[in-house]
Amino acid sequence: MTAPAQELALDVPAGSPARVATPGPGDPRLARLSLNQRTTAGWGLREAVDGCVAAGLPAIGVWREPVAEVGLDAAVTMVRDAGLRVSSVCRGGFFTGADPAGRRAAHDENLRALDETAALSAPVLVLVPGGLPAGDRDIEAARGRAADAVAALVDEARARGVRLGIEPMHPLYAADRGVVSSLGQALAVAADHPADAVGVVVDTFHLWWEPGVLDLVAGCGERITSYQVGDWITPLPPDALLSRGMVGDGHVDFAAFTDAVRRSGYAGDVEVEIFNADVWAAPGGDTVATLARRYVELVEPHL
Amino acid sequence: MTAPAQELALDVPAGSPARVATPGPGDPRLARLSLNQRTTAGWGLREAVDGCVAAGLPAIGVWREPVAEVGLDAAVTMVRDAGLRVSSVCRGGFFTGADPAGRRAAHDENLRALDETAALSAPVLVLVPGGLPAGDRDIEAARGRAADAVAALVDEARARGVRLGIEPMHPLYAADRGVVSSLGQALAVAADHPADAVGVVVDTFHLWWEPGVLDLVAGCGERITSYQVGDWITPLPPDALLSRGMVGDGHVDFAAFTDAVRRSGYAGDVEVEIFNADVWAAPGGDTVATLARRYVELVEPHL
Repeated sequence: MTAPAQELALDVPAGSPARVATPGPGDPRLARLSLNQRTTAGWGLREAVDGCVAAGLPAIGVWREPVAEVGLDAAVTMVRDAGLRVSSVCRGGFFTGADPAGRRAAHDENLRALDETAALSAPVLVLVPGGLPAGDRDIEAARGRAADAVAALVDEARARGVRLGIEPMHPLYAADRGVVSSLGQALAVAADHPADAVGVVVDTFHLWWEPGVLDLVAGCGERITSYQVGDWITPLPPDALLSRGMVGDGHVDFAAFTDAVRRSGYAGDVEVEIFNADVWAAPGGDTVATLARRYVELVEPHL
Repeated sequence: MTAPAQELALDVPAGSPARVATPGPGDPRLARLSLNQRTTAGWGLREAVDGCVAAGLPAIGVWREPVAEVGLDAAVTMVRDAGLRVSSVCRGGFFTGADPAGRRAAHDENLRALDETAALSAPVLVLVPGGLPAGDRDIEAARGRAADAVAALVDEARARGVRLGIEPMHPLYAADRGVVSSLGQALAVAADHPADAVGVVVDTFHLWWEPGVLDLVAGCGERITSYQVGDWITPLPPDALLSRGMVGDGHVDFAAFTDAVRRSGYAGDVEVEIFNADVWAAPGGDTVATLARRYVELVEPHL
């Protein structure tokens, strides 16, 4: 029998009773769990940092916009004083523009993002390549521009001691967000560069459908810069951008996926990243408690 | 200057003025155009057949449900008397069930679908593999069951003189509709069988995002059983099942895709297949007129 207080906990956003007790600060099972702060979109950086500390999470994945809201120096102090690691910075990229001036501007923006990543002592800047320019239907050319833009950042990243993490996105987003649509494709782009400079972001939501993905993941070796977990739920929510499910609510086999990540040798943090209107409508603390429970139930045993 | 009557035509569902004159009966550019009848979902088979004849389309892709509504014999007579080819029958498949009894029932249902395909003198039965059984997260196992189910139908299809067309579906549908998620994967399943028995359905909506897809298509040779066209539009409509766009309204490069199909040697019909609530809300005749215009503008010149 678990304690009565635990039995009263309800999972977000399902509203169903928790299946396991909520792990708390000091629980060794939380040693690699990170809150990607977009999972608690209603929280600013201050609340997210405090939420991680209260729940016993040792790491946070930050986004540039909420960092900018408090200012970079304040953000650095905030996470350091809280004793948190910054597992990643989201996000760079968006460099598939059609015109050279736009791509130069994107490059410069990525340099600023790399500066912030280094200042926050985060190991990786997550790169979302971007979609097709308006009216442009040449996806292979856009993919070529994405690869070129990664190449142009390699020396800059190394000089700052951070890695570039190419995030393959679900083909659902190929037109408007990310033209790198599979892990195989991301690895091919990364392969042109040293692994200490360029790797790939493995996100279960984006990749669970890819044929042969478990073997691909297991063979990634040091190329994995980040492991992000989120579920694929059906029916797909009406807003395609907010279609991710709480870990365990959908179709992803977290045991198999996490086992493949373990076999790759990846030893970094595990970020829970969920864009979902129902999750965002819940109190942040309930969301963090739910994801901690789901993590210790479904992910951590396989790491 | 085009004739005034043509200038008044509006495209469905955009409501924008037509860019080209509507081709009519006898126009040689329509020689390979087929209406997949789900594009005019408000029409029964009778209306769809009449709509094809009125617009000068020589072929129709039929669905089993509207065929059953009029009865198979009546459907055979209807298309024959109208002088139409049946370019394909949609759809068999849905054979990824977890339990053997369900898979036997699916096999038997596919035999009936093959009988209907032969009776309608259609060259191909389109196979939509099906998704994950409820609560099942083993997509690789489901893919294995799909391949086994195709294998079990090969001799049955050959005995009836029809082909099985495996339809890879956009990864958007991997959980709930089709676990075969790429052309590469469909070709791998087909490769275990003779090309006169098993091929692949190439649908622009499902495949446009796949890395390297144009070379894959061009190399398909006689494996292509059907070429279906529909567009990928953004933002994605709220109902993921109805997210296809009218040809030309979205991000697909029909010139490049159709050129790849031509290079493959495919010489069959080209079906326009669009599931979209806005298209379905339009009068069927306007939909057929629009798709005929878009086809002669964007597809046919590249065949």
